[in-house]
Amino acid sequence: MKKRVLVTYQMFKEGYKLLMEKFEVTFPPEGRETFTYDEVYEMLPQYDVLQSMFNFPVDRKLMERGLPRLELVSNYAVGFDNIDIPSALELGITVTNTPGPVTEPTAELAFGLMIAVARRIADVDHRLRVPGALKWGLLENLGYSMCGKTLGIIGMGRIGQALARRAKANCMNVIYHNRNRVDPEIEQEYGARYVSFEELLKDADFVSVNVPYSKATYHMISTGQIALMKPTAILINTARGPIVDELALAQALKEHRIYGAGLDVFEFGDMVSQELLELDNVVLTPHLGTQTFDVRNEMAAFVSRNIINFYEGGPVSRVTRQ
Amino acid sequence: MKKRVLVTYQMFKEGYKLLMEKFEVTFPPEGRETFTYDEVYEMLPQYDVLQSMFNFPVDRKLMERGLPRLELVSNYAVGFDNIDIPSALELGITVTNTPGPVTEPTAELAFGLMIAVARRIADVDHRLRVPGALKWGLLENLGYSMCGKTLGIIGMGRIGQALARRAKANCMNVIYHNRNRVDPEIEQEYGARYVSFEELLKDADFVSVNVPYSKATYHMISTGQIALMKPTAILINTARGPIVDELALAQALKEHRIYGAGLDVFEFGDMVSQELLELDNVVLTPHLGTQTFDVRNEMAAFVSRNIINFYEGGPVSRVTRQ
Repeated sequence: MKKRVLVTYQMFKEGYKLLMEKFEVTFPPEGRETFTYDEVYEMLPQYDVLQSMFNFPVDRKLMERGLPRLELVSNYAVGFDNIDIPSALELGITVTNTPGPVTEPTAELAFGLMIAVARRIADVDHRLRVPGALKWGLLENLGYSMCGKTLGIIGMGRIGQALARRAKANCMNVIYHNRNRVDPEIEQEYGARYVSFEELLKDADFVSVNVPYSKATYHMISTGQIALMKPTAILINTARGPIVDELALAQALKEHRIYGAGLDVFEFGDMVSQELLELDNVVLTPHLGTQTFDVRNEMAAFVSRNIINFYEGGPVSRVTRQ
Repeated sequence: MKKRVLVTYQMFKEGYKLLMEKFEVTFPPEGRETFTYDEVYEMLPQYDVLQSMFNFPVDRKLMERGLPRLELVSNYAVGFDNIDIPSALELGITVTNTPGPVTEPTAELAFGLMIAVARRIADVDHRLRVPGALKWGLLENLGYSMCGKTLGIIGMGRIGQALARRAKANCMNVIYHNRNRVDPEIEQEYGARYVSFEELLKDADFVSVNVPYSKATYHMISTGQIALMKPTAILINTARGPIVDELALAQALKEHRIYGAGLDVFEFGDMVSQELLELDNVVLTPHLGTQTFDVRNEMAAFVSRNIINFYEGGPVSRVTRQ
């Protein structure tokens, strides 16, 4: 008998082809985007695998409900802060994530936000379309060059390194802060220098947040940290919203204590603070880090491979700690 | 007696410091942006050097008016299509340009436009600020990943190569077309493959225009060329407006014959075609290629150095052909 997989979100089916051949896969009914928590709670005992989306809460109560049959929570995300990992480990449920396909597209977007803010791309594109709102001229609409400037990367994991590669090609200096210093070969490859968190904030022209979200990184950037940054500095967050104190940032942007910000994630989920929406020195994107046709298909294939390999043997991207 | 320099545009004085120490420099009066052609025509006989902006027409009539005193036209631009070079050469007037400081910022902006279009940065930033105009969701606002795709560069000069460097770091394949094939070492450095113009249009996911403007490149991209491009292709122009047939492009974008475009230059100067302003699959910037505080100061210093070195000896970026 085929193993049963419950997918919480209505995705393109293309990337799930192989999984659908080998397993019995349930998606939300056509026309509906997602199952609710209550629906999943109801159905879960009949499934071997829960294929959760990054924003679907997988708590202890839900996992206990899935037992004894539930063996695997296969998360469609690089992160797994939506899952109670200690409980999963304790209950003997395997958790997997999909780190691969998100690295380059997220670094790509982070770099795009850096340019969009520094060179005012979104701002001028808006104003060009409003009659009389934009003035042309050699000293108008000036931004900042990035070449020659310093990028400070907070969190030098896969995405941080992919961003460093782009910055180096853009003739930028790279400094970084990380829990642990990375291998000297990696530092050399990107010309990246390890500095303290404070030094990074003080010296960087661009500060990019690329750490995972946890209690330790909650509001890691707030009023005090912003105060250390240069008045010409630009803050980029493509990681998780609550890492940055959004209202403190909005206030600093409003008072031009830093030059600008590019945000792909927000402290209160889909509810972007009204204070940010009114500012023209911030570029806002609705969690587009992995929002491409390519990634959707690649992640579906990755999540499928995790499930197939879990049962058939082969590499699985297993989460072993919070 | 000090040599006299006439600067046609009101610039930041910072980059002109050294020039102002050594020469007698006339800027437009405070509060005015630029001298008119007629004013320059009137004043020019009293000057040794005309320091023209990229959009100030320096024709034969004006240069003849400057004789016998006028020795140097020092253009503040990488291009010099505003100057009648054959006449200048014939009249024995030296022409200089400022290629250096514009290379990296222009490539930076071109790359920023690529990301902004592919990942829909400007479009979603607009819509986020309009209540109800943007839908969140895992299958909403999807763009295209750039990593793994092919960039076709038309014109593999300094800026084209600087763009190739960025594309390579963004894990893209690079193909290019150029009047002449570039050195094998340069091809190897960027993993760039030389192809015909037609092949480039057919195979590239991103097409970037980086050729100088001349009669030969007028409407180099028009309906026929766009017809060769992929339906998912993105066109970028940061070179000169008339190289692209703007109305043909707008029509193609409107009919989704290609995915999108990023334009920093326009066929009719500051007058962006109304057809473009109404489209959400194009990102429009008002000639920002070199529009940064950094470049303004660097170019002023470069243009000053050209003038100083012309008289004192030292390297001068001399234009020797159209």
